[in-house]
Amino acid sequence: MSVQLNVVPFVSVDKMMKLVLAIGIERFLSELAATIEEDFRRWHVFDKQPRVASHSADGVIELMPTSDGTTYGFKYVNGHPKNAHSGRQTVAAFGVLADVGNGYPMLLTEMTILTALRTAAMSAVAARHLAPKGARTMAIIGNGAQAEFQALAFKALVGIDSLRLYDIDASASAKCRRNLGRFGFDIRLCSGAADAVEGADIVTTATADKQSATILTDNLVGPGIHINAVGGDCPGKTELHPDILRRSDIFVEYAPQTRLEGEIQQLPADHPVTELWRVIAGEATGRRDGRQITLFDSVGFAVEDFSALRYLRSVLAGTRFFEDLDLLADPDDPRDLFGMLLRAGP
Amino acid sequence: MSVQLNVVPFVSVDKMMKLVLAIGIERFLSELAATIEEDFRRWHVFDKQPRVASHSADGVIELMPTSDGTTYGFKYVNGHPKNAHSGRQTVAAFGVLADVGNGYPMLLTEMTILTALRTAAMSAVAARHLAPKGARTMAIIGNGAQAEFQALAFKALVGIDSLRLYDIDASASAKCRRNLGRFGFDIRLCSGAADAVEGADIVTTATADKQSATILTDNLVGPGIHINAVGGDCPGKTELHPDILRRSDIFVEYAPQTRLEGEIQQLPADHPVTELWRVIAGEATGRRDGRQITLFDSVGFAVEDFSALRYLRSVLAGTRFFEDLDLLADPDDPRDLFGMLLRAGP
Repeated sequence: MSVQLNVVPFVSVDKMMKLVLAIGIERFLSELAATIEEDFRRWHVFDKQPRVASHSADGVIELMPTSDGTTYGFKYVNGHPKNAHSGRQTVAAFGVLADVGNGYPMLLTEMTILTALRTAAMSAVAARHLAPKGARTMAIIGNGAQAEFQALAFKALVGIDSLRLYDIDASASAKCRRNLGRFGFDIRLCSGAADAVEGADIVTTATADKQSATILTDNLVGPGIHINAVGGDCPGKTELHPDILRRSDIFVEYAPQTRLEGEIQQLPADHPVTELWRVIAGEATGRRDGRQITLFDSVGFAVEDFSALRYLRSVLAGTRFFEDLDLLADPDDPRDLFGMLLRAGP
Repeated sequence: MSVQLNVVPFVSVDKMMKLVLAIGIERFLSELAATIEEDFRRWHVFDKQPRVASHSADGVIELMPTSDGTTYGFKYVNGHPKNAHSGRQTVAAFGVLADVGNGYPMLLTEMTILTALRTAAMSAVAARHLAPKGARTMAIIGNGAQAEFQALAFKALVGIDSLRLYDIDASASAKCRRNLGRFGFDIRLCSGAADAVEGADIVTTATADKQSATILTDNLVGPGIHINAVGGDCPGKTELHPDILRRSDIFVEYAPQTRLEGEIQQLPADHPVTELWRVIAGEATGRRDGRQITLFDSVGFAVEDFSALRYLRSVLAGTRFFEDLDLLADPDDPRDLFGMLLRAGP
């Protein structure tokens, strides 16, 4: 990293993709998952502010800050379901890591790809504690931008080698199978949700519509499975029938946020849930037995983004996968900002 | 501006300085002031969220978001008084403007220099409504990074041509005089605050220490002057003796924030103040008569940063004062983020 005070390392989309491929997608996911577990084990040190949301008719723009007292991170992320119609991502993001001691940013990075990776890594971390032992088959319902990342994270961290794919748009499933061709999965394209969940140890739901839909009904959910609910992640958007929730042991990232944004917005505000960090820290039990239905009601939390930024920074040093961004004014004399401006003239 | 969806225009420190000099500092300040006035006149359209602050022993990191319903802006800014000892700015900032309709950022920029300019422009906007008619002499107490910007904004917008400078560090005043040499001011270096305020129509206080100090005592403040209090801008940091406040008509940006951060934190929470937008919009009176003491208790508000970002964007188009930043993943098919990642390989 540079010692010039004006410069902030910047990871562009192009550099991020090349970095991830240079490290290897599965290794990146595994190391990122390890960083998330590390941070979840020290959950109490984090400043857990609610995200700062600016809602509009078409979507939301959010700032998600957190700090461990030494390092500060935030993510800017939008959520605009109609964006796909204009060729844009429904979710795009960038983030910053900064030094709490002097307030200076020390990393600026794209986070659209990084968020896809951290969401998948987070799901796999949860599944390591919640999925049935020896799970090898996962259904993925909703085969959009998150599907392949989920598949690879569950391969790397849980041992999934068989996928059952379903999407209302068959071309999405075909895209998913094509992209995963080189990774050694046994892949089956399914004709519906009922077909997809048959024989699955884990069911991942990752649909994208900003509305409450019932992707899974109660009769489809057999004993012993783990449900990884990724798509229901904002007020008014859920994927699961409430009867499934009532039969499941529910695990969440941060209960105050999940009660607003997750599947459990369909349940009374006092319905018991377990925060996942307690399981990871050994303070609560994850899966108890082979017949229990476990549910990870994932909405994404600032600490995970912090982990992702922290992991990214740790692998950047000494690489060529960042640029120097001239982001911070750095006059020779801090009181002489104006003099610096004048001296920039011809 | 680019039509590539992945690209966000970025204004580096170097480009910002060159842009400001190309436009001309005084013209930049005047046009920025006009944009601030425009936005203050439509005050009710803005989403006025409190800033999101992360405090630590050494300082604070803040996110300051706002939106007019069409455009969203936020500023990242730190405040670390000890930074000067390590050659860093006590305040460094960057900001983003985004499209509310699709959530995509449309401008990323350094804001250390831009904030210095908007703070000065804001002060001058206030003084146009509050300072005595025909004011030509301004005292500036505290001759650090903000001083010259204040001087030029008051020259361009209020007609100040005579400056009386004082700083506990005489070298700061000398620096200020040197930097302002080419701008045609009559400049006098003063031996103390009492000397500086003598004959001044306007007194600007812009000291930097993060503590309550009494830069101005009551006996120094004569009738008819306008006080532009820039330096007292966070909890525990004030510059003026409370007796001065009690004799003044006080104008603020956004009362809920100023009561926490401004000079008026020394007064009861119900002490009457006038929000400046009401004066600008013609709903309240600014200066009534020649003996009234007016006080602008400036702390900086998100709407001003929004105006600064909006003005910056308006002057960028067609210039060479920005770079294209590859910040947003833009797969050909929005559902195929993973495929884009794979295709970045060799």
